[in-house]
Amino acid sequence: MEISKRGREIQASPIRKLKPLADQARQKGIKVYFINIGQPDIPTPKPVWDAFCQAQEEVLSYGPAQGLPELREAIANYYRTKGHDLNSENIVVTIGGSEAIHFAFSAVSDPGGSIIIPEPYYTNYNGYASFANVNIIPLTLEVEKGFRLPSREKIESKITPETKAILLCSPNNPTGTVYTKEEIARVVEIVGQKDLFLIADEVYNEFIYDGLHHTSVLEFEEVKDRTIVIDSISKRFSCCGARIGAVITRNEEIYQAVLKFAQARLCPPTMEQKAALRAYQLGPEYFQSIRQEYQKRRDLLYQELSQIPGIIMHKPQGAFYIIVRLPIKNSEHFVRWMLTEFELDGETAMVAPAQGFYASPDKGRDEIRIAYVLKEEDLRRAIHVFREGLKKYQSIYS
Amino acid sequence: MEISKRGREIQASPIRKLKPLADQARQKGIKVYFINIGQPDIPTPKPVWDAFCQAQEEVLSYGPAQGLPELREAIANYYRTKGHDLNSENIVVTIGGSEAIHFAFSAVSDPGGSIIIPEPYYTNYNGYASFANVNIIPLTLEVEKGFRLPSREKIESKITPETKAILLCSPNNPTGTVYTKEEIARVVEIVGQKDLFLIADEVYNEFIYDGLHHTSVLEFEEVKDRTIVIDSISKRFSCCGARIGAVITRNEEIYQAVLKFAQARLCPPTMEQKAALRAYQLGPEYFQSIRQEYQKRRDLLYQELSQIPGIIMHKPQGAFYIIVRLPIKNSEHFVRWMLTEFELDGETAMVAPAQGFYASPDKGRDEIRIAYVLKEEDLRRAIHVFREGLKKYQSIYS
Repeated sequence: MEISKRGREIQASPIRKLKPLADQARQKGIKVYFINIGQPDIPTPKPVWDAFCQAQEEVLSYGPAQGLPELREAIANYYRTKGHDLNSENIVVTIGGSEAIHFAFSAVSDPGGSIIIPEPYYTNYNGYASFANVNIIPLTLEVEKGFRLPSREKIESKITPETKAILLCSPNNPTGTVYTKEEIARVVEIVGQKDLFLIADEVYNEFIYDGLHHTSVLEFEEVKDRTIVIDSISKRFSCCGARIGAVITRNEEIYQAVLKFAQARLCPPTMEQKAALRAYQLGPEYFQSIRQEYQKRRDLLYQELSQIPGIIMHKPQGAFYIIVRLPIKNSEHFVRWMLTEFELDGETAMVAPAQGFYASPDKGRDEIRIAYVLKEEDLRRAIHVFREGLKKYQSIYS
Repeated sequence: MEISKRGREIQASPIRKLKPLADQARQKGIKVYFINIGQPDIPTPKPVWDAFCQAQEEVLSYGPAQGLPELREAIANYYRTKGHDLNSENIVVTIGGSEAIHFAFSAVSDPGGSIIIPEPYYTNYNGYASFANVNIIPLTLEVEKGFRLPSREKIESKITPETKAILLCSPNNPTGTVYTKEEIARVVEIVGQKDLFLIADEVYNEFIYDGLHHTSVLEFEEVKDRTIVIDSISKRFSCCGARIGAVITRNEEIYQAVLKFAQARLCPPTMEQKAALRAYQLGPEYFQSIRQEYQKRRDLLYQELSQIPGIIMHKPQGAFYIIVRLPIKNSEHFVRWMLTEFELDGETAMVAPAQGFYASPDKGRDEIRIAYVLKEEDLRRAIHVFREGLKKYQSIYS
């Protein structure tokens, strides 16, 4: 009686697997600053909370597999406001961006197929790739080059007969890079010529700093029927626990496949959809102050990190993450040490070891990801604790 | 640019695919009685609704991948009250019973493996089997024999080297059969001797009539580490739209695999878990009146159906479904006709064609599934409309 190979081999979430150590630290009375996970402290908007009280009916019943019609319309409208030609028939509501990724992978590829993704990448792509038996082919980017996309030739060199799609995430988790129109156009041209799908994870689209512009793959009419956009309210509206996302596609065959996948799991949670509707109705002004807040945090983080000798990093332009190369050998060992051996006046900080964001073996072993999701005062203190921890760790282990 | 084979070939939900016809009938002003889908009209318990208002925090944040600890404890406690030796470390909260099925299939089998399931069976097993690239091997049961499990030899004849598990659903959707202790013991012995897993979908465990006893696979200590129980609050607490279920297992390897699958999708919806907690805290007395109500409906339905000449059925002992063989050739054609051509004083009824509940080709073409989820008055009227429709259909098509 053996369990499945996929059950044995699917990776434990590198972000979540160290959580028990943090729990133990807290049980010992140590305050842990969590800058390892993208759980923002921005309050969930009041209209979202109100919906949970106000939108109740007698029976908490199933909704349509593709999501409540009013929510699909609100999502389409959100994108129309940004100039994209979409309607509710292009939207399938999913159980978080996670399910949207799973559906997209399964719709473009059968088991054994492959998807090219620039690395470091959002680690949960691995989970769904394992689950869907799809191979991720990493396209390695480098911190020294600001994690920019490589040349056309370099991207094309990764394509094999098994390749079904290229996935781009911009603004990027975990690097914070925002791809330029030229970079995305380069990939658009490749998928057109090589007959591939283009999956775009744009869940951080509202979080772009320094007045930069977000280029969506939806802008490129020539790949209208090749693009699949992954959406989610988790970060955009501080609703991580709602588990509401969407697959957005103008390819009718992909839409029908995703719809059938969606039917198999019946429907997304009904109340959370009603709450999500209120979020999408908020309008663009909602993001102004939040964008400013994140930009302030980024500036603070970058400035504080800059004072650490020997680190290499690139200033993020969007999302709320940064990848930092540390002058140490094994960042997972360091993170474990921070949680089990270190404290500064009863406090410690948890960051994410970056190895899990790479598919290439041994990449990222000396890197970490920091999420700037805490308010200024806490973030400042978290970085201070982190710096002191790093200093002590280096004094012991080098 | 081709989409995946699994995307093309996964079946559209046979329960949900005819829904657009019902929507069109309603747009024409026709009242449709929905006895096709297991969406109960029993009000969702007030404490569940209250939780959505009362259990709010500042940020709607991620929970643990395996579910909120208090909910896992409440689920374990629910089972302990029934005499099963479980604790929260045996529970992974899932996004509905649907995800629990998906996780269970993926944990016991790699692509190409097979799972034996008595047919007719809950049609959504097909969706997740496609999605996980697992083959369902049907073990055909017959209405004339009350859908009882066949002999040991007959069950064993379905086992091949690819077989990873046997799945039992009791009380059964769609037949309403409740397996006896002897029947389950038969399967328990087989899985032990043939080294298989036993997946048990027991989501209807509270809905058993005529004072019969529900036998859970959890009672069989000899397969303690082989059993995976699928749980869900959808029907039990009239919370279909909450999408909260669970995988219950005492096999540590299976638990760890399911936990990693769960990490890939981050967490179940937070607010719906808090609501589910209140449901599990309700206590056994909550079910008494509901059980009586369903038994009354079953009696009414059975009595009314009995008056239709030429039908074959078996009185359900649990859940809230019945499979009925009709004296017609093509039940899907009949269901379509009922929604598009027929009305009785501005009303019609929608039942589910049973073909989708079978994996064997051509099985169930003359059968339907009825869900007795409407209150007495509506159910009586629905059956009346159904009978009149059937009479007219027969007069046209035979």
